[in-house]
Amino acid sequence: MKTSRHTCSILWKTAISALALCISFTAASQQNVGFRQGDLISPVINSDNTVTFLVHAPMAKEVQVFGDWEADNGYGKLEKDAEGIWKFTTVPLPSEMYTYRIMIDGVMGLDPSNPFTRRDVGNNFSIFYIDGGYADYYQVKDVPHGNLSYVWYQSEKLGTERRMSVYTPPCYGRGKKRYPVLYLLHGSGGDENAWIELGHTVRIMDNLIAEGKAEPMIVVMPNGNSLKQAAPGETSENLEYRPVMTNMMPGYKNGNYEMAFDEIVNYIDNHFRTIAKKEMRAVAGLSMGGFHSLFIALNHPGMFDYIGLFSAGLNTAFLDMSLPVYSDMEKKLENLKEEGYELFWIAIGKDDFLYQDNLKFMKTCDEAGFDYKYHETSRGHIWANWRQYLLLFAPMLF
Amino acid sequence: MKTSRHTCSILWKTAISALALCISFTAASQQNVGFRQGDLISPVINSDNTVTFLVHAPMAKEVQVFGDWEADNGYGKLEKDAEGIWKFTTVPLPSEMYTYRIMIDGVMGLDPSNPFTRRDVGNNFSIFYIDGGYADYYQVKDVPHGNLSYVWYQSEKLGTERRMSVYTPPCYGRGKKRYPVLYLLHGSGGDENAWIELGHTVRIMDNLIAEGKAEPMIVVMPNGNSLKQAAPGETSENLEYRPVMTNMMPGYKNGNYEMAFDEIVNYIDNHFRTIAKKEMRAVAGLSMGGFHSLFIALNHPGMFDYIGLFSAGLNTAFLDMSLPVYSDMEKKLENLKEEGYELFWIAIGKDDFLYQDNLKFMKTCDEAGFDYKYHETSRGHIWANWRQYLLLFAPMLF
Repeated sequence: MKTSRHTCSILWKTAISALALCISFTAASQQNVGFRQGDLISPVINSDNTVTFLVHAPMAKEVQVFGDWEADNGYGKLEKDAEGIWKFTTVPLPSEMYTYRIMIDGVMGLDPSNPFTRRDVGNNFSIFYIDGGYADYYQVKDVPHGNLSYVWYQSEKLGTERRMSVYTPPCYGRGKKRYPVLYLLHGSGGDENAWIELGHTVRIMDNLIAEGKAEPMIVVMPNGNSLKQAAPGETSENLEYRPVMTNMMPGYKNGNYEMAFDEIVNYIDNHFRTIAKKEMRAVAGLSMGGFHSLFIALNHPGMFDYIGLFSAGLNTAFLDMSLPVYSDMEKKLENLKEEGYELFWIAIGKDDFLYQDNLKFMKTCDEAGFDYKYHETSRGHIWANWRQYLLLFAPMLF
Repeated sequence: MKTSRHTCSILWKTAISALALCISFTAASQQNVGFRQGDLISPVINSDNTVTFLVHAPMAKEVQVFGDWEADNGYGKLEKDAEGIWKFTTVPLPSEMYTYRIMIDGVMGLDPSNPFTRRDVGNNFSIFYIDGGYADYYQVKDVPHGNLSYVWYQSEKLGTERRMSVYTPPCYGRGKKRYPVLYLLHGSGGDENAWIELGHTVRIMDNLIAEGKAEPMIVVMPNGNSLKQAAPGETSENLEYRPVMTNMMPGYKNGNYEMAFDEIVNYIDNHFRTIAKKEMRAVAGLSMGGFHSLFIALNHPGMFDYIGLFSAGLNTAFLDMSLPVYSDMEKKLENLKEEGYELFWIAIGKDDFLYQDNLKFMKTCDEAGFDYKYHETSRGHIWANWRQYLLLFAPMLF
């Protein structure tokens, strides 16, 4: 009996494997089993933190990798071996989460052997991590995990249901405890998924909380595109709404999102176990989300005790300053100062194209005697910086 | 002033556009703005429900599309025009959600111009919808939306925290109402994301509930790989755990998942507003999840009043029938019969490689006088069938 079962098991496995092999290179129209990568593993993270990319493309004339690491400007030219496998190895890379694409004969695409991807605005990228530093916070560890919910709320001011992401900490709901809330806003071209997928908020918060470095808190990530209900593919426009930079969309500069933000705070206070007071609320955002954070805070004095601008878009030259949301900025800064706040934190990279605008804004703050803390990093307008800013900002809260 | 603002606005837009163009074809290492597709739109859904694929690949020798539509076995050979754009148009396709990949000179990849993708086991696919039938249920409509949560529960029997997806209906939490629960299980190679990403459960349930065709219910989608905590990339193995077919993984046939299923039901009953009784519980699954559903129901008599096997894996030849989970099958069927149930539903496609095993199982049921309902469709072991089975099954519940 044992032998017979064993034989059956082998036959079964063989049948499935055969199917898998057949299907992987033919149409998938009849049997949806056995989908899997080939045997090639790419990328390979070597023990010295160099990374080797391997692409099986015997017919190709040129294969290149374009990534977001700093060394060699993230570029590499792969070389073909006798089996038609193209290879390139980077220099040792610092710990980070990296995104990259492979270009074969002028066509940009993903790494065919890497199943792990992220979408950033309109493009898809393959990803990998280098351990031993920042990226340890961006990965899942054996620590208690918080939950993540995609929640729809009714916006009366924007006249529609809208979607947001909500992280609740590991201990949430196990007792009567209530929690402070960080409202965390995405940049142009982002949506309610951006801080999850690219920002790694869930892992960062789980890991900071497990180490006792951050207070257990709720993190709310709304959608900052006021004329959209949700991320591309998640609205009733479905795939007709292709992701674009938000500043190419209508309604970007009407201030409606900032002025309706109290609805989001009210929804969260009514549906989650929050501590509904200023001392227990923070708002922060990257790029356009930093711009939003500033004007949300200015137009809702007494709502937030912590405000974070990460590589914020602070050029007001393109705004209609007569709109209530943007008008009387100096008076609103004065109001905020009178209300009081625990932390007004500005962070930006030296190479950021918004660097000068941030310096100019800080000069305005200095002249108004408006206190802030400033954190300057290397590099530019990139997710590596925004993840690091969250890692630094969250421990300063509450 | 107005002119000056307008000029600034144009300058700002121009700067961003210029950056976007620069960055899209150089390394993304310094400025993470402006990511977006080129001008090419692909695929184009034509008014007659034919679909045109366009790929800009001037250097390529051969471009092919491999999809999961039935016509032409989902295959097409693209032809190059004078500008180096390759094109292929399908015959008219019936309403469905379709997945496809583009092969350029032997390298399989995504459609470079389509931002929308899904991962199925180890491979990524581009997607599109054809409206006017089934696919209308798979897309987002202007109806009230339910929420989706990724929830971690502690499994004492499996000795670890584990992740599951939970859909709550639109009205959930707005009053004191309690809801019935459908436990919906994925197949081999799947995980807690599969019924969301490929099964479109959230949209199907939102749309069925909005039309009054299904009772508002909670849908719980656990992870059926008993030695894994969560989907690939969501466990502490991080990207080391590359997606594979579950039957290639250890622990697939030890029955631990099925025997520990009461922990999931208890967790849900303790943390969600359920009606915690047999009449208000269903369990259903596809392929391996159908196999799981059968043995979960057989080993937990009195727990479920509705059982659904979608293209279920019912070949017991490869099982160790001495294990408590699989032993005494006839006696357990008899128990289930005595306990009583509202619906035992079996669905499979005529071309499914598991078709004969399902016929054999139904013969066993017939001989035992065990009542079931049978639904036979065309085609094989594919998501198009499983989405349709959910569309048919959910309205029969509660």
